[in-house]
Amino acid sequence: MSTTSSIRDVAMKGAGYYSRATTGAKDVIDNATPMVLDAAAALPIPSDGRPVTVADIGCADGGTSLAMIARVLRTLRERAPGVPIQMVYTDLPRNDFSQVFQHIHGLTDVESALLDIPDTYFFASGTSFHQNIFPPNSLHLGFSATASHYISEKPCAISDHVHMVGASGDERAAYEAQGARDWETMLLQRSKELVRGGHLALFNFGIDEEGRYLGNTGGVSMFNIFNELWRDLVDRGVITDDEYRETNFAQCYRTVAQFCAPLNDRSNPVYKAGLRLKHVETRVVRCPFERDFADHRDPDRFAVAYIPTLRSWSEHTFVAGLSADRSPTEKQEIVDRFYDAFEDRVRDNPEGHAMDYVHTYLICEKV
Amino acid sequence: MSTTSSIRDVAMKGAGYYSRATTGAKDVIDNATPMVLDAAAALPIPSDGRPVTVADIGCADGGTSLAMIARVLRTLRERAPGVPIQMVYTDLPRNDFSQVFQHIHGLTDVESALLDIPDTYFFASGTSFHQNIFPPNSLHLGFSATASHYISEKPCAISDHVHMVGASGDERAAYEAQGARDWETMLLQRSKELVRGGHLALFNFGIDEEGRYLGNTGGVSMFNIFNELWRDLVDRGVITDDEYRETNFAQCYRTVAQFCAPLNDRSNPVYKAGLRLKHVETRVVRCPFERDFADHRDPDRFAVAYIPTLRSWSEHTFVAGLSADRSPTEKQEIVDRFYDAFEDRVRDNPEGHAMDYVHTYLICEKV
Repeated sequence: MSTTSSIRDVAMKGAGYYSRATTGAKDVIDNATPMVLDAAAALPIPSDGRPVTVADIGCADGGTSLAMIARVLRTLRERAPGVPIQMVYTDLPRNDFSQVFQHIHGLTDVESALLDIPDTYFFASGTSFHQNIFPPNSLHLGFSATASHYISEKPCAISDHVHMVGASGDERAAYEAQGARDWETMLLQRSKELVRGGHLALFNFGIDEEGRYLGNTGGVSMFNIFNELWRDLVDRGVITDDEYRETNFAQCYRTVAQFCAPLNDRSNPVYKAGLRLKHVETRVVRCPFERDFADHRDPDRFAVAYIPTLRSWSEHTFVAGLSADRSPTEKQEIVDRFYDAFEDRVRDNPEGHAMDYVHTYLICEKV
Repeated sequence: MSTTSSIRDVAMKGAGYYSRATTGAKDVIDNATPMVLDAAAALPIPSDGRPVTVADIGCADGGTSLAMIARVLRTLRERAPGVPIQMVYTDLPRNDFSQVFQHIHGLTDVESALLDIPDTYFFASGTSFHQNIFPPNSLHLGFSATASHYISEKPCAISDHVHMVGASGDERAAYEAQGARDWETMLLQRSKELVRGGHLALFNFGIDEEGRYLGNTGGVSMFNIFNELWRDLVDRGVITDDEYRETNFAQCYRTVAQFCAPLNDRSNPVYKAGLRLKHVETRVVRCPFERDFADHRDPDRFAVAYIPTLRSWSEHTFVAGLSADRSPTEKQEIVDRFYDAFEDRVRDNPEGHAMDYVHTYLICEKV
């Protein structure tokens, strides 16, 4: 989950908080590691002294992918002795890249074996994945997890919800159209950067064949509670109608069909650029906090543990929705009250709450 | 000046403070830009689709070199149309790389034209310049300003001074030996990374032919005042003898002969690796604050403007010298008192104070 501010907030709350709050995101990557290793095994290896280039695109602080990346780089190191490997971490310019390098160099509490891999070079890029990051024909393996749901701009305000999964009509269509444009742009940029035979491993928040998505897998719908509690602050006179309307996640959750369209439609520029779908599947990864609750059955403990993982990636959006006329302190008080209400809700009635992860996993190859 | 904490401190004090405090470091680079452009004009250009790679090694936040780098990249863009250019900013893992990318992307108050240069790609590396940063035979032009005086470790405490320029006997020799080892290591790493015909432009704090060095160009010696005022805090019972002894800059200012030795000695591994000295000179760049004082003649205004530029790079060393038993607040109070004393000294007797920059400029080529 790739917004800088949320990661910084989490990092500032200490390493333990961090590890817990991103535990689920790491599970998603760990569970899918065999897919990335298969892609790494299929890459062409340069024989002219050029490096093999691997990228973690939308890496945030690089912590959740560290173990997986180590396995991929070791696999490549064994496959291609003597060939230099470049590992590039990318995210927006304001991302905490120092934390990325501290993770790589083993200067945090997350164990790193990356520097033990010989002839491997680590870099970062602050260029958005909607733009051109790498020279043409230079990228071998692009990995990206839980990043492409961020769209480049919000197409409109949503009148009756905070997230496009709750929008309808023209508003829903506008978000889906923006999501389609950004997805196509992202794939097109990567298709130019990939070498022939290069692969992409893209694991993204999406809507699965049964209509499930993050925090909406049969129990209580997390985004509906966000919406309900934020709306409740209007009713109580804490925030204004305008603020409610302006609070929207700059995200699009895509269906499997929407993810696959540019890769299957022969008239699409992505298809024409040679990018092909090798594999697609959806998976639900169970919320680690709800899983813990199933064991300990303590509603208070569940509520206290659960809210930070929601807050780590959503807080920025709620703060940003508030009027610029409010002081930072006032904004923080409103948002604290909001998450406290969510915590109370979970404590009073814990059943059904779960931020289960619903991802669509795509493996693509440039032919 | 390449320590993270100092740059962060400066950055946190606001953009105006930042620009003023690093004005002299930018002057050093701006004045020497023709040397870098000459080196860029002499580089071999790849004809097989590989990129031209340029690096700013020990870049800190990248602000002081931004204008120079833009000229270098534009020169290369004109020389080599259609050839991708990679620009890599390097520093230690804890450096503020987000600020580097924000500078590149024009998100600060420093104007950036870097993104207007077509087919140019920006990256960062958090690997120390004493280590291997790039794949072999891949670097075309390495630029480094005001960075290599930082040594990889302090060889000993200095008994009677805070900086090696004031040390003598075995202590002085130990710093010079560490400085020689680190300089040779740095050059050797770069010689492996450079392509044949690749260049280095290295502009470093040093001791010139007349014995001048930073803040010691004929008037009051800045490092002697640092030492005297820090020693005075022992006499006043504010800090301990141990703290005084433990306060040493992890720096070595090298003579011209010391800079040139590995490049001229045919038995040296650097010479054997093919690195050759193309050009060497020393320059004194006048302190911008003393220059302003020569115009306005207001001692108070001089003192207030002058101390932040000293403080921006030296504060970290004085804080680090204090006992771990002291609280952060206590440490800050001691260091505030120390710089206040320096400010009073300048206010009471402003003549002769000047942080003139004394640099040795080297251009090297790998043959």
